[in-house]
Amino acid sequence: MNKQIVISLAILIFAGSTAFAQQALGGRQDILSPEIHEDHTVTFRLQAPNAAEVKLTGDWMPAEGWVPGSVAMTKNENGLWTYTTGELEPELYGYAFLVDGIRVNDPNNAFVSRDIATLTNIFMVGGGQADLYKVNEVPHGSVTRRWYDSPGLNMKRRLTIYTPPGYEASRKKYPVLYLLHGAGGDEEAWIELGRAAQIMDNLIARGKAKPMIVVMPHGNVIQDAAPGKGTQGYYKPAFMVPKTMDGTYEETFMDIVNFVEKSYRVRSDKAYRAVAGLSMGGYHSLHISRYYPNTFDYVGLFSAAILPNQNTTSKVYQDMDGTLQNQMENGYELYWIGIGKTDFLYRNNQEYKAKLEDMGMPFTYRESEGGHVWKNWRVYLSEFVPLLFQ
Amino acid sequence: MNKQIVISLAILIFAGSTAFAQQALGGRQDILSPEIHEDHTVTFRLQAPNAAEVKLTGDWMPAEGWVPGSVAMTKNENGLWTYTTGELEPELYGYAFLVDGIRVNDPNNAFVSRDIATLTNIFMVGGGQADLYKVNEVPHGSVTRRWYDSPGLNMKRRLTIYTPPGYEASRKKYPVLYLLHGAGGDEEAWIELGRAAQIMDNLIARGKAKPMIVVMPHGNVIQDAAPGKGTQGYYKPAFMVPKTMDGTYEETFMDIVNFVEKSYRVRSDKAYRAVAGLSMGGYHSLHISRYYPNTFDYVGLFSAAILPNQNTTSKVYQDMDGTLQNQMENGYELYWIGIGKTDFLYRNNQEYKAKLEDMGMPFTYRESEGGHVWKNWRVYLSEFVPLLFQ
Repeated sequence: MNKQIVISLAILIFAGSTAFAQQALGGRQDILSPEIHEDHTVTFRLQAPNAAEVKLTGDWMPAEGWVPGSVAMTKNENGLWTYTTGELEPELYGYAFLVDGIRVNDPNNAFVSRDIATLTNIFMVGGGQADLYKVNEVPHGSVTRRWYDSPGLNMKRRLTIYTPPGYEASRKKYPVLYLLHGAGGDEEAWIELGRAAQIMDNLIARGKAKPMIVVMPHGNVIQDAAPGKGTQGYYKPAFMVPKTMDGTYEETFMDIVNFVEKSYRVRSDKAYRAVAGLSMGGYHSLHISRYYPNTFDYVGLFSAAILPNQNTTSKVYQDMDGTLQNQMENGYELYWIGIGKTDFLYRNNQEYKAKLEDMGMPFTYRESEGGHVWKNWRVYLSEFVPLLFQ
Repeated sequence: MNKQIVISLAILIFAGSTAFAQQALGGRQDILSPEIHEDHTVTFRLQAPNAAEVKLTGDWMPAEGWVPGSVAMTKNENGLWTYTTGELEPELYGYAFLVDGIRVNDPNNAFVSRDIATLTNIFMVGGGQADLYKVNEVPHGSVTRRWYDSPGLNMKRRLTIYTPPGYEASRKKYPVLYLLHGAGGDEEAWIELGRAAQIMDNLIARGKAKPMIVVMPHGNVIQDAAPGKGTQGYYKPAFMVPKTMDGTYEETFMDIVNFVEKSYRVRSDKAYRAVAGLSMGGYHSLHISRYYPNTFDYVGLFSAAILPNQNTTSKVYQDMDGTLQNQMENGYELYWIGIGKTDFLYRNNQEYKAKLEDMGMPFTYRESEGGHVWKNWRVYLSEFVPLLFQ
């Protein structure tokens, strides 16, 4: 290139694509954080010369009661704080800095996940199970954010749909997995935190899962979309919004099924429908599958928020035993329950398991290490999906 | 609900959907920041009892040379720092806190935009032009992230496609706008920072724009996808990657057009194709439209990175005059140039304008206030789109 162009490019580089973001760069080009080493140790760095104390908190650290663990970082003579972990297992991790007691995202890491109202920096240590969460050189499905009409809620609502590789060019009809989020989640949760698109792409490419459509709706029925994505605009997301567990979602769920079956090439048959969800979405999956007891051949309860059903007046529990009995008698292929040993819902799941055993209702039970965390839900999804539509 | 359920729900609420994110909540439920008041003033709040100095920097503040403006915030006896702006015009804004000199995102605002490697908190003051950027109660198009095959680059690559409301259920063929990002951007930029889906939904609902497909590809030809969305995984995004302005994108652009015309119900005719872009994407639009001089009836150069073409050896400039002449002789409906008065590319655009005038090549010229910022590109898009395919 001649000198004039080089100068012009240099101007472009320094001026940046938006003056504000470029000039206000919180990070620095010469600071790499996190740096993932070949031996699976990870170094974190933060330039904070005026800070008296900087800690690192990460979801791989043992929690201290309700408080996540943290470790002190070390400051050098230039005001750069550093910490290197021990060897970490392959996984998608979250972390933050605590600068003089304030939780601060890493200005040198552009990757975050939102969970409810909190942004958490993420990074991945590859290999093993984590290779399912990566974008590999395999055929990729498409991910669409689309709006559907819910006559039952009198609302246009947003959902996320994964169609498998080859869907668009094919004339085939596909099975459908309805995949439900937890309290505080929305139609972005399984894609963003759950890596659902990558897990599906990779399982399908390995021949471990049938090509299927995955529908990720929004389970908070008073909202039309995830925070910031709907008509409510930007507002402060709250953990549990009203009407999420009162039966309204279950009652109106067929609006979603009808939309999908009208709009996509799918097999409209019990044998080709699955419903699964985590936490509150496990509760929803449990109740949706008994509300429509001849609709889903595959049910997945991941760390399900199973609440006691005795003496309750909530309409969702009405005739719980009768409808479960009905669901059992109609038959199904798989009723899958996954729970972590330290999950706060462990006991509730054991009670529900005992109830199913008493009823003679068949199920598959998977007990894992760990608690009520996305790590488990990604693992459960990657184990559940290969069992579907076989 | 009975007591047992209430207790269970309370446990759910405190335990959260992921233990880490919930327990590590950087924000506080009782702090609202930013708070947008009815008179369009905005209050920012940050709890930082140990900080000696907290400033607020925002893109509505006049820059101080290359450094964006900032104002001091005021601390109260509880360690809460506060600042309230004057009345702000309707717009989508970005801001950050400077805590003892470190740029920190607002822990009480879950909404950010990524520009290159920097996350910036955003908020919106509604009304006027900004109502085009909101999700209103109008029919919504669908937004799909999809992978296409680029034989020219020997790569599967990711792009973002907006299909207008009604596309899926229709049998009609639609016109297509190819909408290109700037240096440092990717296939997420126009959707995220440019509010392209909202602008299209709202213009179509108002009857100001024809329903059209908008294709937002990734212009950095050495990458397959936006940072974090492709096979390169999570890495530190850089401002200008190699081969972005050397002609490779222009040479292989028909891979994208061919994919779209094969995969969507579109009108494969010059009269129904438009190409437009901002900054580097304006450069790309200029050259793509002359590389394929009988392909696009509509061309939009938004703050285009027009570089001098004299004495250069870069192949993209070869026979610049001849190809422009050819493009002019083939005819087109619209050649639209928009530039801000304080844009660092203003003079280059004036020189290009003079060149076109000398050649007798017709164009429409739009001069705005302001510089090289997304505010202008959103405005240009919302003015350009109503002129297409009429």
